Amino acid sequence: MQPSRAAPKEAARTIYLDNAATTCTDGRVASLIHEMLCEEYGNPSSLHNMGLRAERRVAAARRQVASLAGCREEEVYFTSGATEANNLALIGAARAKARRGRRIVTSQIEHASVLSALDSLAADGFDIVKIPPRSDGTVDPEAFAEAVDEGTVLASCMLVNNETGALCDVADIAGRCKAKNPQLLFHCDGVQALGKVPFSFKKLPVDLMSFSGHKLFAPKGIGALVVKKGVRLLPLLYGGKQQGGLRPGTENTAYIAGMGLACELARQEFSARLAQMERLHDHLLKKIAETPQLCSNSPLKCAPNIVNLSVPGIRSETMLHFLEGRGIYVSSASACTKGAKSHVLAAMGLPDRLVDSALRLSFSPDITEEDLDLTIAALCEGASSLARA
Amino acid sequence: MQPSRAAPKEAARTIYLDNAATTCTDGRVASLIHEMLCEEYGNPSSLHNMGLRAERRVAAARRQVASLAGCREEEVYFTSGATEANNLALIGAARAKARRGRRIVTSQIEHASVLSALDSLAADGFDIVKIPPRSDGTVDPEAFAEAVDEGTVLASCMLVNNETGALCDVADIAGRCKAKNPQLLFHCDGVQALGKVPFSFKKLPVDLMSFSGHKLFAPKGIGALVVKKGVRLLPLLYGGKQQGGLRPGTENTAYIAGMGLACELARQEFSARLAQMERLHDHLLKKIAETPQLCSNSPLKCAPNIVNLSVPGIRSETMLHFLEGRGIYVSSASACTKGAKSHVLAAMGLPDRLVDSALRLSFSPDITEEDLDLTIAALCEGASSLARA
Repeated sequence: MQPSRAAPKEAARTIYLDNAATTCTDGRVASLIHEMLCEEYGNPSSLHNMGLRAERRVAAARRQVASLAGCREEEVYFTSGATEANNLALIGAARAKARRGRRIVTSQIEHASVLSALDSLAADGFDIVKIPPRSDGTVDPEAFAEAVDEGTVLASCMLVNNETGALCDVADIAGRCKAKNPQLLFHCDGVQALGKVPFSFKKLPVDLMSFSGHKLFAPKGIGALVVKKGVRLLPLLYGGKQQGGLRPGTENTAYIAGMGLACELARQEFSARLAQMERLHDHLLKKIAETPQLCSNSPLKCAPNIVNLSVPGIRSETMLHFLEGRGIYVSSASACTKGAKSHVLAAMGLPDRLVDSALRLSFSPDITEEDLDLTIAALCEGASSLARA
Repeated sequence: MQPSRAAPKEAARTIYLDNAATTCTDGRVASLIHEMLCEEYGNPSSLHNMGLRAERRVAAARRQVASLAGCREEEVYFTSGATEANNLALIGAARAKARRGRRIVTSQIEHASVLSALDSLAADGFDIVKIPPRSDGTVDPEAFAEAVDEGTVLASCMLVNNETGALCDVADIAGRCKAKNPQLLFHCDGVQALGKVPFSFKKLPVDLMSFSGHKLFAPKGIGALVVKKGVRLLPLLYGGKQQGGLRPGTENTAYIAGMGLACELARQEFSARLAQMERLHDHLLKKIAETPQLCSNSPLKCAPNIVNLSVPGIRSETMLHFLEGRGIYVSSASACTKGAKSHVLAAMGLPDRLVDSALRLSFSPDITEEDLDLTIAALCEGASSLARA
């Protein structure tokens, strides 16, 4: 059987378990965006009061993001998303520091927008060292820091892996790197961590941290880079004087306000959401353990909203389409790699039969235990019917 | 009297004459965006049918933009706005062509995102030649092409100037440049032209053209770059495989759909909007000619939606705040330069008393002749009361 990408037969209920790929915008956020587009549409650079009001909305959103991320409001720069934030952080820092040294240290489990941005710097003479993860998908702080030398200008490690949920001990990793080389800048991709796991920028020994709106119930097309006060980056874009010249271009006021509200809601509802995610996570892991056709690929030290599992013998994409026919939406690897084999699971040393059959399930707060039970049942049904096919 | 930026006393009706700075999102576009955020929120890179549906919405929007711009759909790349589109075009082309030569020709009246992007290339060893405009604010094709030599890899000229509305004869300019050096890439900033003046990308001898959503009743934070088939650019951002790798990052599906619809509406309503703009333009120029306190700075060859005028003796910002107190919103120079003196009017050789008192009035289709009469009356009232103050 070759499942197609055509629309499935109508499912009783959609179970969207692909929230690490992207989320449905929170209704409150979507309403605010609509209001901004139609009523508060001034250009923040305009001198009249419509401009001033827009500028104040941007400033308010900056405070909301800062409050959730644990940084100062003047450290927040809005971008068009995490890809731009990661690129601005890494390329901007490497170019600013190029005269001090040429080594950059990162891990093999980073997102494509980190690894590709660093690969582009290799063409400019930078030496990129990529540390393999431990077999559970986390990064070994000692091994990471080991690669840092006098000529290392930059290091980058994510807080939560987007495919497995693995939680990296960035405090320890960055602390060890800075102890070895206090001049080095440390960047952390915090995309899958914001609003999901507790952290505070100001308590981490990091200089740069990237965030995305659309992983947190704000739209696709907005993100933020936190730049520690005093850290100088070179911009990627040139133009007007917006955002101190580090990120020129008319501000996306509607999405900025929306991302601000999404952060505010995530902060207010943090404990409730976290408790719900942990309940779902525990429930799912228990079910997986009870189901012989399934095995979990996520480490014990894991964000509670992501579970990576394999259904040995059934290729990821085949199972993904089988589930879709039942109104259940999951990922194979990350969305951004669009069907390519997972570089993360491969780096963990997982055997091919687990890599080729891996699925990522990622939650939102409106998922229930019943949704997960239906998903497990569908996985079992798929495992037997697809194996026979 | 020093007018403040505090909220004005409630005006009877808001007359928004700052549409070249930014526009109110069309209600139909805003509704579509809301629907996309809450219902069609799939990630176009996801393999399941929610992803496929999102991918189809992006493809449909690409067709809508292509249809208005007169290019092929596969030539449209969505960006976070015109600043990114201009930077990607210019920096991307210059880096791709760097081995062929080092000269880049442009005009002095370009937008800050063109001039600053080119200035950044000067640091990489490029020689940037900026041609002054004629005294009416348009660019002389002969003088522009004169600066092109064998080592010229890139040239850039806008179609409609954002401050004066001056219409540049890009067909003639680019044609002459290509005749002198067929290898050269020609970029045109079409931000203020899209949906406002008739043109067709495929009929212009240009390779790259930039557009913005928020000048055309779509939101701030979305734009497009048209890249002629076969033209190779280096990307500014690295990451996933989205948009052929030239512009990675999860697509802003809601705004992309919104920009597509805004282009579709602009195409359908083109003649009606143009006729309305021309009526307003003629009416305003006639009123200005009848009013001794005012003089127009816009050339005869001008887009119909922008009029630049001066109120000699009254500083732009002072008058801007006086008008704001009456619910009338205009610009001094462009919004992006936030109050700095206009480099465009200065390059035209306008005397300081006209540059310092310049205002830009820019229309939307819901502006009426009565709105313009009220604005002229307010300008006259301001001219006499502020001169006495």
